[in-house]
Amino acid sequence: MTELSTLFEASLDPDSTAPLYRQLHGALRDAILGGRLTPGERLPSSRAMSKHLGCSRNSVTEAYDLLTAEGYLEGRVGAGSFVSRAFAEGWVRDRPGMLHGHSDAGPPRLSRVGEVLLEMGAGSLEESDDPRQDPIGPDPSAFPFDIWARALARAWRRPSPDQAFRGDPMGHRPLREAVADYLRKVRALDCGADQVMITSGAQHALDLIARLLLNPGDSVWMEDPSYRGARAALAAAGAHAIPVPVDGDGFDAARAADIAPDARAAMVTPSHQFPLGVTMSLARRMKLLEWAAAGERWIVEDDYDSEFRYTGRPIPALQGLDRARRVIYVGTFSKAMFPGLRLGYLVLPPALVEAFRAARMLLDGHTAMIGQLALAEFIADGHFPAHLRRMRALYGRRRDIMLHHLNERLAPFLAGPSGEAGMHLLAHLREGLDDSAIVRRAAGVGVNCQALSAYHAGPDRRQGLVLGFGAVREDAIPGIIARLADVVGQR
Amino acid sequence: MTELSTLFEASLDPDSTAPLYRQLHGALRDAILGGRLTPGERLPSSRAMSKHLGCSRNSVTEAYDLLTAEGYLEGRVGAGSFVSRAFAEGWVRDRPGMLHGHSDAGPPRLSRVGEVLLEMGAGSLEESDDPRQDPIGPDPSAFPFDIWARALARAWRRPSPDQAFRGDPMGHRPLREAVADYLRKVRALDCGADQVMITSGAQHALDLIARLLLNPGDSVWMEDPSYRGARAALAAAGAHAIPVPVDGDGFDAARAADIAPDARAAMVTPSHQFPLGVTMSLARRMKLLEWAAAGERWIVEDDYDSEFRYTGRPIPALQGLDRARRVIYVGTFSKAMFPGLRLGYLVLPPALVEAFRAARMLLDGHTAMIGQLALAEFIADGHFPAHLRRMRALYGRRRDIMLHHLNERLAPFLAGPSGEAGMHLLAHLREGLDDSAIVRRAAGVGVNCQALSAYHAGPDRRQGLVLGFGAVREDAIPGIIARLADVVGQR
Repeated sequence: MTELSTLFEASLDPDSTAPLYRQLHGALRDAILGGRLTPGERLPSSRAMSKHLGCSRNSVTEAYDLLTAEGYLEGRVGAGSFVSRAFAEGWVRDRPGMLHGHSDAGPPRLSRVGEVLLEMGAGSLEESDDPRQDPIGPDPSAFPFDIWARALARAWRRPSPDQAFRGDPMGHRPLREAVADYLRKVRALDCGADQVMITSGAQHALDLIARLLLNPGDSVWMEDPSYRGARAALAAAGAHAIPVPVDGDGFDAARAADIAPDARAAMVTPSHQFPLGVTMSLARRMKLLEWAAAGERWIVEDDYDSEFRYTGRPIPALQGLDRARRVIYVGTFSKAMFPGLRLGYLVLPPALVEAFRAARMLLDGHTAMIGQLALAEFIADGHFPAHLRRMRALYGRRRDIMLHHLNERLAPFLAGPSGEAGMHLLAHLREGLDDSAIVRRAAGVGVNCQALSAYHAGPDRRQGLVLGFGAVREDAIPGIIARLADVVGQR
Repeated sequence: MTELSTLFEASLDPDSTAPLYRQLHGALRDAILGGRLTPGERLPSSRAMSKHLGCSRNSVTEAYDLLTAEGYLEGRVGAGSFVSRAFAEGWVRDRPGMLHGHSDAGPPRLSRVGEVLLEMGAGSLEESDDPRQDPIGPDPSAFPFDIWARALARAWRRPSPDQAFRGDPMGHRPLREAVADYLRKVRALDCGADQVMITSGAQHALDLIARLLLNPGDSVWMEDPSYRGARAALAAAGAHAIPVPVDGDGFDAARAADIAPDARAAMVTPSHQFPLGVTMSLARRMKLLEWAAAGERWIVEDDYDSEFRYTGRPIPALQGLDRARRVIYVGTFSKAMFPGLRLGYLVLPPALVEAFRAARMLLDGHTAMIGQLALAEFIADGHFPAHLRRMRALYGRRRDIMLHHLNERLAPFLAGPSGEAGMHLLAHLREGLDDSAIVRRAAGVGVNCQALSAYHAGPDRRQGLVLGFGAVREDAIPGIIARLADVVGQR
């Protein structure tokens, strides 16, 4: 019988979270796999073992039982426990290498999709590092979490079995009805609740659209500049994103058709182009709809921040004009509520509902019910519009103050800062100024802004600053703009 | 000026949820797009229009303002509003078709992924129709929702900005630590919290694995019979699932290698094969690990119902034996908690963490924080193990009663019903009995069970009944089995 003290590579740790029997099980298993206990060898009696280890005999017998159940040991009645010959001779002796330590191979082989996402993701990892630095994010401190917590508790104290156990791949019906009602009223959409699918955020919605409608190699018109998340969704589907320069009238389908006549889809932000903020003209909307209607082409309308508009009336959504049912409308609650909620929605053409429903069921079942139930309560109790009004006023003030100070301090460097909606201002830079350099210098003095050029995918990269005001306290704005002014001029 | 009464296709509805100005806006827009208002035509004054419609003049001016902002109308100071020539002449007259009614094309063109999922999903749609009919689901009525609601409220009354606004693509850290701790202790996994990624359910985890690790055309070993959801994830990735018959010792890598030597991955349920319930022998585990270690191959270990075992000790997970870091471990909270929660987890080999983190960030950001925070509280307060103990006892009793009655009433038809774990029993049928026919007849008398043959993908389909007991009240079991006995014998 082996000398017990030589049996264990590491001694057992009474303070470990793992129970002693589990530690002993692991130690003996390693001893067997490592060949320190040889096939056919008899183990110490549970009494001897427990005495040696100073642990309860019960822990030892539990460990022996488990090792026997697994097949490492075989018990012979009255004779004790032995290292299994059947197993050990077959496996252990010639394979110590495989069973000792961890092999550290190089980078693992991923799928092409995995490689693409790893490469794209690596860059963005830092950016997303602090959400309060998100230039277009809402204000963490302004959300009524007390009311929210009550809605959660109310919704979940006594959920129906359906709510807790049966998720509709399309989403919680009352929430879908609230969304459809809101969109019809406020965004002039032409839709019913049957067309609404609740998603786990807008990014998830874009990913679903790309997966279910685009094949690898398909060309897709993208606004240039544009939202990087949309490009990621296309890349993951292997689709080919075609950047199309956006002018003052928004995205131009005629220009896009010259660049890529064979595109299968277009991803646009007609109400408030991201990040330029321009509105797509009616003529351009008609042209785009006509293009989609003429073939089996899809238009993805991302209405990412329609809730917040500070001047003039919100322009109705493109979807409401679409008679050919080619528009897929994407919205999110990340800005109106808070990003961690991960709730967004799709308004699908009726012909796509069944395919999306089936796909959700098979890919991830449905979006978690917890947030959906609480949000439906939050809306039903009238808290949602009230919250929007409060935030619109709050963000509106911050926008005005920031605009004022930009014009005061930075007029010589900027070409008309603007921002009718959303949570950011865009300030084009005058000839000769380098936005990336300014953004770096600004970060150095604690001012967070983004370079317009970084949102471009095409060759023609405009220089400008994307300045978020949503999460910036009013009294902090003058100082921020002053510090920005100090660095903008520097060479 | 057009006769006003002829202007509107539909009259305005004062009871509609849409405000009057919005209804008027829509009606005038359609009149312009439909050509009933011609380019250059002057609109009635807001006074005349409001008088005609019996609505406030304010509603009319709001509608006119919006139509002007959109470009349908152009205002001439003092002269009123006119249908825009610039827009209308360019677009409307030659395109009434496009702008009237909805074109109803045939089935839409989906991506190949979309087609595959639509086809697979169509079948499952009915099955998932009632979760309480889910043969392997938990009991809706036994979950402590009062405690859960308190955990939710506590977690969300005052969340940190990080919790509400910044989601870690890997998941809520305290929850990941709780999961890692639980898995090390209870399932003998070799892992730290850094390897744990919280997913939106186990199905979502399988989908991520398939997307990030498999290319279209890659072969993957699948247990036969097996979980249909796993096959769906592979199909969505375009991977080729190779069914490998499972025997009493579980999945056999040697046999699989004969069938498909070039496989890139294997999807297995070693602890409790689904749905057969057998445990993979130690020799088979070693063989499988050796195969993976020998090449760049992945093993997906689905430990779907490890929390519930009624006889003997739970066999430690395969992952704990894996020295080559080739095993990706998948778990879910759907059974231990409730399905609508949509929380599951992956334990990744360290080499895969960065790729999965980047992919989550770009594909869907992260799993919603709401359930994660509450679940972490629920676990921290000790409610989780307590709930598991209660459920294990409850389900254990139901299992014993069902087993007893099966043996009593159905012995002549069944070959040893069994079920050491999980929420279902498996009863192989004796020669000559057709499980699908029995399942249909059983449904006719209100008994829900599933045909073992339906879980097979390969040619050799065993005949048996999968009987769930998790959600069946104890006092209902004798009657259910009696009704089942009545129909099993029928020809």
